[in-house]
Amino acid sequence: MKAAILTIGNELLSGKTLNTNSQFLSVQLNSLGFEVVKHITIEDDEINIIKTIDELANDVDLIVTTGGLGPTYDDITVASIAKSLECEMIFFENVMKDIKEKFSKYNSKMGQNNISQAYFPMESIILKNRYGTASGMFLKHEKVSVISLPGPPNENIPMFNEFAIPLLQKMGNGKIIIKDIVIFGVGESNVEEILSKEIQTNGNIRIATYIKPRYVIIRLTSKDNSNIEKYSKLILKIFDKNFVGFNDMNLEKNVVELLKKRHLNLSLAESCTGGMISSMIVNIPGSSEILERSIVTYSNKAKVDELNVSTQSLETYGAVSEVVAREMVEGLYNKTKSDICISITGIAGPDGGTKDKPVGLTYIAIKSSKGTVVKKYNFFGDRNTTRHKAALYALNLIRLEFIE
Amino acid sequence: MKAAILTIGNELLSGKTLNTNSQFLSVQLNSLGFEVVKHITIEDDEINIIKTIDELANDVDLIVTTGGLGPTYDDITVASIAKSLECEMIFFENVMKDIKEKFSKYNSKMGQNNISQAYFPMESIILKNRYGTASGMFLKHEKVSVISLPGPPNENIPMFNEFAIPLLQKMGNGKIIIKDIVIFGVGESNVEEILSKEIQTNGNIRIATYIKPRYVIIRLTSKDNSNIEKYSKLILKIFDKNFVGFNDMNLEKNVVELLKKRHLNLSLAESCTGGMISSMIVNIPGSSEILERSIVTYSNKAKVDELNVSTQSLETYGAVSEVVAREMVEGLYNKTKSDICISITGIAGPDGGTKDKPVGLTYIAIKSSKGTVVKKYNFFGDRNTTRHKAALYALNLIRLEFIE
Repeated sequence: MKAAILTIGNELLSGKTLNTNSQFLSVQLNSLGFEVVKHITIEDDEINIIKTIDELANDVDLIVTTGGLGPTYDDITVASIAKSLECEMIFFENVMKDIKEKFSKYNSKMGQNNISQAYFPMESIILKNRYGTASGMFLKHEKVSVISLPGPPNENIPMFNEFAIPLLQKMGNGKIIIKDIVIFGVGESNVEEILSKEIQTNGNIRIATYIKPRYVIIRLTSKDNSNIEKYSKLILKIFDKNFVGFNDMNLEKNVVELLKKRHLNLSLAESCTGGMISSMIVNIPGSSEILERSIVTYSNKAKVDELNVSTQSLETYGAVSEVVAREMVEGLYNKTKSDICISITGIAGPDGGTKDKPVGLTYIAIKSSKGTVVKKYNFFGDRNTTRHKAALYALNLIRLEFIE
Repeated sequence: MKAAILTIGNELLSGKTLNTNSQFLSVQLNSLGFEVVKHITIEDDEINIIKTIDELANDVDLIVTTGGLGPTYDDITVASIAKSLECEMIFFENVMKDIKEKFSKYNSKMGQNNISQAYFPMESIILKNRYGTASGMFLKHEKVSVISLPGPPNENIPMFNEFAIPLLQKMGNGKIIIKDIVIFGVGESNVEEILSKEIQTNGNIRIATYIKPRYVIIRLTSKDNSNIEKYSKLILKIFDKNFVGFNDMNLEKNVVELLKKRHLNLSLAESCTGGMISSMIVNIPGSSEILERSIVTYSNKAKVDELNVSTQSLETYGAVSEVVAREMVEGLYNKTKSDICISITGIAGPDGGTKDKPVGLTYIAIKSSKGTVVKKYNFFGDRNTTRHKAALYALNLIRLEFIE
């Protein structure tokens, strides 16, 4: 079955917003057994949308659209699709009720134009939006099926996963099983090289790799679970220490689970990451059980006051040094007595680098019952990238505590 | 002048590669005075490429393609474009020479198939590739101009900047000026309602709104800077306290600038945001001048130890309460003596909410020379959204200190 993705919005054509929807949907649709043959981006323009739907309806079995489901005058996706496919639009009472409830729950006033968000083609199955007022639709038409989702990824990703996938699984020819293996610390081309023999598509299983920022995902797709299990075991054996988990697992979830299971707690002393690690951990529900505290000692004074780092070490070795990373983690441990303590100090750039201490130089120290270890890294990238890498490598050090 | 971007490659349709080319080229083309009306992604297929070029040639003045310029059998972009536009392909001696030199420089053996990379339509201007073997082309045809670039961003970005921009500047009819006005704390539909009179496109200026997560952007587009200035002033007067800045300004940059200018420093005591605010601030280069420290007091024990919050208040009112928010900010101030202190405590969910204290309930306290204020909010969304909203409203409180 062929599919096309139509992303609608001026912010994409102006370049203001990076189109991540097409990638997300492509990965999902391919693993559901659809062949994605086209991505198109156009503006919120009725004539244009109608023309594009007309054309795509001749070429593909499924069109997934994002964008243009809001309450404002240029949000015309659903009405334009209905015109193209000659469907009658009707008012969905339950959708309106849902919108009203969202507004009243948060004590904000519903606008007149929100009423337009309750109109969909009569034959639609409504896709609920838990994080916004714009519902989506699944429309099975004689020529083509259409799924319409709102533009923001934080709304359309959960909607697609929860409501669209079950409908698409019915539509396809038999259930397809997907398993993602999440790998950290090896590059994608290395992974492909190592798996070159397995990665060839054979009749029973498809093995492909793709990137989630800083992770390599090895995706296994098959109709037969025993194939998935067989190759999954094989791959886990190969990547062993780089294996973070399955599906939507990531390092922060992994670390929260590992510590929770062992009733251990964690404290952090962050300099260059500036609270990024603790923020990533706090984003995992239930992290309150394991995170004791995090101290963002961005200034030297804070390092001295909060962590008892010696001013002499700061002067002699500089804030970004093995000695200071070690003193930070020791100071943190003396203060919190947490089971795992992490300190991190680095040069995030773009300024502040020297020949001896270039931008990206980072020290991460970990203290646990096994003792204290300080690791040195040179991360490459812009400020946000080097900080994100530093955060992930720090989490990875915690993870490795339990598998080495 | 209208432009379309055609990105060619199976890796985009499978979702393996995120399409950043379309965004990069859109930003560039818009600022060169082109209106980008369409992005299309298709696979390396001759019939498909010819059909797409045929269609686009009727709709736009310029087509920019990426991908399919390599030496392998499925790299057929240039030949397909030549077929569509009925151009004769010829062998470019100097391109071949350049490819041979690159191979000999890196001591690697040129393949027979690299010869195909030296064929271009006779009328082409060759665009040199400093980082790969695939040259690009600029082809000015009667109906349409076509620029073809290789797929990898590290090759096509420098090529576009160095060789395509000068050619496009000659082609365009005058520069278009774009100004974005960044607004916080009003919804998009409200902004549109307020600007409904101005927002209609009139001949001299285009006023449109779009969303960057949690901000509304009002974009002014015109050929005439005096129009931009006139409407910009008008809109600033209307949105006054909600105005964050122009173009890529956001709250964290704004706050860093405001504090830097006044030589003030900032400390944070974060609970539900878990370090998100400090991480956002640290991502701004130069933030070390203003951020003293941030203490993520996620556990009650940490609130007591680090901020001297009374255990009695925690027991009587709970960690998420006005009283505790106030004690947190006072404790932080006593400890750091920073010019601005912020504390934040809330229920991020998904669990932990009650009828009296629902998920999203957040208290933010600010202490400055003006005294201490505690504000109460009810944020809507998933865990990451409520935390991000809390972080932005906290930054907004700092901003408002200087304009109220």
